[in-house]
Amino acid sequence: METRSAAQAAIDAFNELPAHVWPRNARRQEDGVVTIAGVPLTEIAEEYGTPVLVVDEDDFRSRCRDMADAFGGPANVHYASKAFLTRHIARWVEEEGLALDVASENELRIALAADFPAERITVHGNNKSATFLQLCLDSRVGHVVIDSHQELAELEALAREAAVTQDVFVRVKPGVDAHTHEFIATSHEDQKFGLSLASGSAYKAAVDAIRSPHLELTGLHAHVGSQVFDAEGFKLAAQRVLALYAQIFKETGVALGYLDLGGGYGIAYTTEELPLDVRAVAADLLSEVQDVADDLGIAAPTVVVEPGRAIAGPSTVTVYAAGVVKDVHTSYTTTRRYIAVDGGMSDNIRPSLYASLYDGRVVNRFAEGEPTQTRLVGSHCESGDILINDAMWPDDIARGDLIALPATGAYCYAMSSNYNAFGRPAVVAVRAGRVKPMVRRETVEDILAREY
Amino acid sequence: METRSAAQAAIDAFNELPAHVWPRNARRQEDGVVTIAGVPLTEIAEEYGTPVLVVDEDDFRSRCRDMADAFGGPANVHYASKAFLTRHIARWVEEEGLALDVASENELRIALAADFPAERITVHGNNKSATFLQLCLDSRVGHVVIDSHQELAELEALAREAAVTQDVFVRVKPGVDAHTHEFIATSHEDQKFGLSLASGSAYKAAVDAIRSPHLELTGLHAHVGSQVFDAEGFKLAAQRVLALYAQIFKETGVALGYLDLGGGYGIAYTTEELPLDVRAVAADLLSEVQDVADDLGIAAPTVVVEPGRAIAGPSTVTVYAAGVVKDVHTSYTTTRRYIAVDGGMSDNIRPSLYASLYDGRVVNRFAEGEPTQTRLVGSHCESGDILINDAMWPDDIARGDLIALPATGAYCYAMSSNYNAFGRPAVVAVRAGRVKPMVRRETVEDILAREY
Repeated sequence: METRSAAQAAIDAFNELPAHVWPRNARRQEDGVVTIAGVPLTEIAEEYGTPVLVVDEDDFRSRCRDMADAFGGPANVHYASKAFLTRHIARWVEEEGLALDVASENELRIALAADFPAERITVHGNNKSATFLQLCLDSRVGHVVIDSHQELAELEALAREAAVTQDVFVRVKPGVDAHTHEFIATSHEDQKFGLSLASGSAYKAAVDAIRSPHLELTGLHAHVGSQVFDAEGFKLAAQRVLALYAQIFKETGVALGYLDLGGGYGIAYTTEELPLDVRAVAADLLSEVQDVADDLGIAAPTVVVEPGRAIAGPSTVTVYAAGVVKDVHTSYTTTRRYIAVDGGMSDNIRPSLYASLYDGRVVNRFAEGEPTQTRLVGSHCESGDILINDAMWPDDIARGDLIALPATGAYCYAMSSNYNAFGRPAVVAVRAGRVKPMVRRETVEDILAREY
Repeated sequence: METRSAAQAAIDAFNELPAHVWPRNARRQEDGVVTIAGVPLTEIAEEYGTPVLVVDEDDFRSRCRDMADAFGGPANVHYASKAFLTRHIARWVEEEGLALDVASENELRIALAADFPAERITVHGNNKSATFLQLCLDSRVGHVVIDSHQELAELEALAREAAVTQDVFVRVKPGVDAHTHEFIATSHEDQKFGLSLASGSAYKAAVDAIRSPHLELTGLHAHVGSQVFDAEGFKLAAQRVLALYAQIFKETGVALGYLDLGGGYGIAYTTEELPLDVRAVAADLLSEVQDVADDLGIAAPTVVVEPGRAIAGPSTVTVYAAGVVKDVHTSYTTTRRYIAVDGGMSDNIRPSLYASLYDGRVVNRFAEGEPTQTRLVGSHCESGDILINDAMWPDDIARGDLIALPATGAYCYAMSSNYNAFGRPAVVAVRAGRVKPMVRRETVEDILAREY
């Protein structure tokens, strides 16, 4: 009897939608169908097919506002468009008053195509081409984040030629790893981004930028990592970059104004994980920056941040249809159930690429079976095409059931491919009971359209 | 002096194009420029931009013929289109007389759009939809490879409804891992593809197919792995599947005719690697199949194989332009040179996804500098965006140099993404001094075209 009730508890948990993982407006109706913003996912699957990405627009916007509240206003929050960018999304970010961080020429072009105000755009990239830098100048972007001495010289030359002055940040390698809190600069400096604090390279770039009449250095940038779950890494980076900030002030008299601490705010992908408490971390971080600035005898700079995943990630679920269900022997006495869905590593490369974990739920009904060891796989011709490696799921899931994976807003659409000639999924936004299509499903005709 | 000559030897080696890694028609001219099929890569980069994939058409076709020679004729070789498929490529495969293996509905549609004869198409997939199976029947494909009992029942029902008989193979899990030669069925059965030999599941499917008036079982299929470098794994799989083949013959009287041993023929990605000797392995394998069949008292089936990488992989190089060059401290006394190119994990995910190794060469001139520890990185906003992790490269490589990575024909274009909104590269074929564009470069307008 105890076994049965433990099993029932597992199934009950499977039917729940943990609020820290699912979009804020996700609910399960009395008939078992899951809705987002009042729209049944069954209706979306019926109309748009599967797989389909469903974005809870109010969830996305509310996380923009939460970040703005935590960091002292929307202008201090630069949404990292690499996580998930369409013109619709750029417009939401604009309407919420946030700034935008782009990391490539085409991300900039998409933002401009959405009429995002260029002065609120910050431009990243370790290898910006001359064309890209010229586009930055021509479109009068807010900031270019200088990533190398070579880029500094190139941008300076282009700005001189265009007779303009471009606001810039310098990207600093603070030598901090957010996950280990290590200070060992040498190990964390071995990466492509930024200029070394320890070697004086960042200081030199800052001074060169200050001396140039065509560049206006207004801040320093540092990024400590991804999926960070406490404030320590951010604080260590802030301390170190502030020391440089103070050095620049003392030796040149220039108070830059901005300290850009990048992104990395962790989210929950599964029930077992807890997202970073942004409000608490922000308060801790801002107070640390004030204290360090006081100690250094300088005015505290305005802290700006670049969340991508923390805004886009939880807003979206991917809805798949279940297909083949197969029990496979894992020993002479045990089996594993394989459930295949109609997408896979083409629409979500993260489990294969980063060993990322995801949760899943049946969203067209209540699940009722016994918990069984299950692996959720895709339809690609590759044995590593696994979405969820190991879960205890009810054994009544069958072809035609709809399975949704939450927290797929960041780096899923953004990194999607045409592997096995799969078309990319449709993307729809839902808000207040209405569906707004954002991206139509890619067809084989689309794929062939670029062929001669 | 010895150090100098060792360094010179390293640079000389860097200027060479190892024949086992580069396309067969790659040469370095006296001016240092690399040509493929007589076409300078500098001219291609100039006309089509970078990154660009350059396919040596005669290399591709010659590897089709090598495989056909090794395995007793072109009909026994099914090119695995998942490695690299465009309509041009499907036509080359058709003209060389090979069969084609497709693994998705869209791969089948692309093959049909290239007028590839349907009767020479074999259809794979662990999760074929009803639409996909219906398309197989409607287009009268040669073989459907049955991957589950569920699929067998569904295909049977569709074939009955259409009043047709469909030739099928059954995909068997032989419980063999090609890399370890292990026989432990349970560990290698824990994957999504195929039906278990050990449990009797494959036998049951075979008998069910034989009994159906709408399915014609004509062979068994087994795939042992990827990047295999000796014959043992193939031979072990052949032995085991032949035992099932003999059992089917003895218990039903049906001699199926075909043994499909899948793909996995290893290629060299770097100078240090050696490709599998296909001719030797094929001879070994075919003789083993004959011996085992003799022992079992059955007529040897025709062996068919499904090479993808072994045909497409070595045919192609990706040409990038170098951009930012940066020296980074890796300790207080050592540095690493970072060379950034104008592509990265969007056009080649394999180093990030599989920790795959690649070689690279400067192709617009002879390199002349001192060997220095170098990392080749892409332009994506991700520190893991690395193409070549660690190499000793000459220190005179600078912005504007063209760097080509060979052996990028398989799973590069096929798995390419729009990460950071990068457009996918152009793809061109070269043959006998002429350039034939295959796929045009993707633009931001293409990316935006699917948005509402």
